[in-house]
Amino acid sequence: MKPVMHVEELRRFLSEGFPQVMGPESGFSVEAIGEGFVTMKLVAAERHLRPGGTVSGPTLFTLADVSAYVAILAHIGPVALAVTTNMSINFLIKPPPGTLEARASILKLGKRLAVVEVAISGEDDGTTVCHAVATYSIPPTREAKDGAGNIAVK
Amino acid sequence: MKPVMHVEELRRFLSEGFPQVMGPESGFSVEAIGEGFVTMKLVAAERHLRPGGTVSGPTLFTLADVSAYVAILAHIGPVALAVTTNMSINFLIKPPPGTLEARASILKLGKRLAVVEVAISGEDDGTTVCHAVATYSIPPTREAKDGAGNIAVK
Amino acid sequence: MKPVMHVEELRRFLSEGFPQVMGPESGFSVEAIGEGFVTMKLVAAERHLRPGGTVSGPTLFTLADVSAYVAILAHIGPVALAVTTNMSINFLIKPPPGTLEARASILKLGKRLAVVEVAISGEDDGTTVCHAVATYSIPPTREAKDGAGNIAVK
Amino acid sequence: MKPVMHVEELRRFLSEGFPQVMGPESGFSVEAIGEGFVTMKLVAAERHLRPGGTVSGPTLFTLADVSAYVAILAHIGPVALAVTTNMSINFLIKPPPGTLEARASILKLGKRLAVVEVAISGEDDGTTVCHAVATYSIPPTREAKDGAGNIAVK
Repeated sequence: MKPVMHVEELRRFLSEGFPQVMGPESGFSVEAIGEGFVTMKLVAAERHLRPGGTVSGPTLFTLADVSAYVAILAHIGPVALAVTTNMSINFLIKPPPGTLEARASILKLGKRLAVVEVAISGEDDGTTVCHAVATYSIPPTREAKDGAGNIAVK
Repeated sequence: MKPVMHVEELRRFLSEGFPQVMGPESGFSVEAIGEGFVTMKLVAAERHLRPGGTVSGPTLFTLADVSAYVAILAHIGPVALAVTTNMSINFLIKPPPGTLEARASILKLGKRLAVVEVAISGEDDGTTVCHAVATYSIPPTREAKDGAGNIAVK
Repeated sequence: MKPVMHVEELRRFLSEGFPQVMGPESGFSVEAIGEGFVTMKLVAAERHLRPGGTVSGPTLFTLADVSAYVAILAHIGPVALAVTTNMSINFLIKPPPGTLEARASILKLGKRLAVVEVAISGEDDGTTVCHAVATYSIPPTREAKDGAGNIAVK
Repeated sequence: MKPVMHVEELRRFLSEGFPQVMGPESGFSVEAIGEGFVTMKLVAAERHLRPGGTVSGPTLFTLADVSAYVAILAHIGPVALAVTTNMSINFLIKPPPGTLEARASILKLGKRLAVVEVAISGEDDGTTVCHAVATYSIPPTREAKDGAGNIAVK
């Protein structure tokens, strides 16, 4: 399963298309793209924490959702239309503040549905603090052009 | 399954304990408490929307999580320590902006685990736009005092 | 959401199409069809139990899956092709042997995906012992003929 | 995370304790135990198939559940009491008949809850056909003796 976008392309597409979530202030960034996966980072700021100083559930949900979405995007091209239909998320350990790393691995990339697994860990010790599996509905037409005008159909 | 807190008690406890999530600016409010359930409302503001004007996934996740947590709290008293361990959430229809209503119904309230189902609908037509089932771990000791100093053990 | 099949039609279709699961020896039976839901029964026999005499997990999974499938069938007609893509199932209480009742309620019936919630309870006291939410992929063409040769498209 | 049982110990314990599920006729077998994981095999027989010759949903559910249970057992010793509380299972591709391999990896092994991820693939090509994440409740006392009378507490 080969990606069809480079990291830089993906970053540009995301910061233009989703400035609130992926803009320079957001804390979210794409780190790497590989065959069937992407890795992302979140530098957790004050607004991402809950009382007690641990990263909040909605922040972990957002990181899992964004990472899975980006993994699909990286492999089908910038169609920007895959829609989350289900996520099952397990909160394993309360994550400390600081940088979190998410690795989103594609389990299935079908014509209509994609299923992606996401493991989130603290940057230091690699222990998985949160694990999610999400399903995305892919719209009927997957033909789309990337920023350079190339067709990016898988 | 009888609740052990009144709406006013619950509101006071939440706005004091969780000012960011449940304060007057948050948009979230407890509407009603009944046997085995609570209902909550969210008046979705600009920050709850995603591009296109629909309520964002993280906002729906937060509403489901808060409603389920409040349902447990209302039935075991203000222990404030139940921890989300799993949520499976289905996004059924993109919800329009405006007011959303969540009904959280307790499926199981055990000594160690609680399972709560949440249906979220638009205020107008009652169609379920999002559905979630969440599991919470309840800490070993459930003895706790409410604001008035009464023991609130179930 | 109006059903398009009667109980008798549904029973005949199922026992012909799925003799192992729905034949007279199977223990499974369709009880009722209503707007947006069906109810089914399982008379649990020796082979449905695990050590200790409670109904086994795979049996509860099967009852949830069959009930959800039948609910979709009852509302889109005998296309017999909806495929389970995801199920999140919560085991709440170990169910005693005897008759179990499942109520499958359709949360969403889209062109491509259906989401169904299933609550399983013991016949006597109505306590929910198991709860599941399942997603089904519906094949592109939903046109199909029932046993009598009528088109049964919703 | 080091296992506390050897493959032979585990096989003996399972075939004595769960003869229906793990006996020589069952088709299920433990293949390997490692740090934080086990692998199991299922040789799918006629009774594991559904119409069309693919392995049935309940069979995949059973394989996922048994593998996750065995992974926990291998790491906490033969307490035999961990109870499935939730499973979210994704059916990715219809598996052909033949031998299936399940790899169950422990995501969390707490005092009260364990969370295990299971990937099921066909023996030949290694493509994941089914993926599940399951939560187990672990009873208060985890002290237990193995067949040889040794305490096997983690």
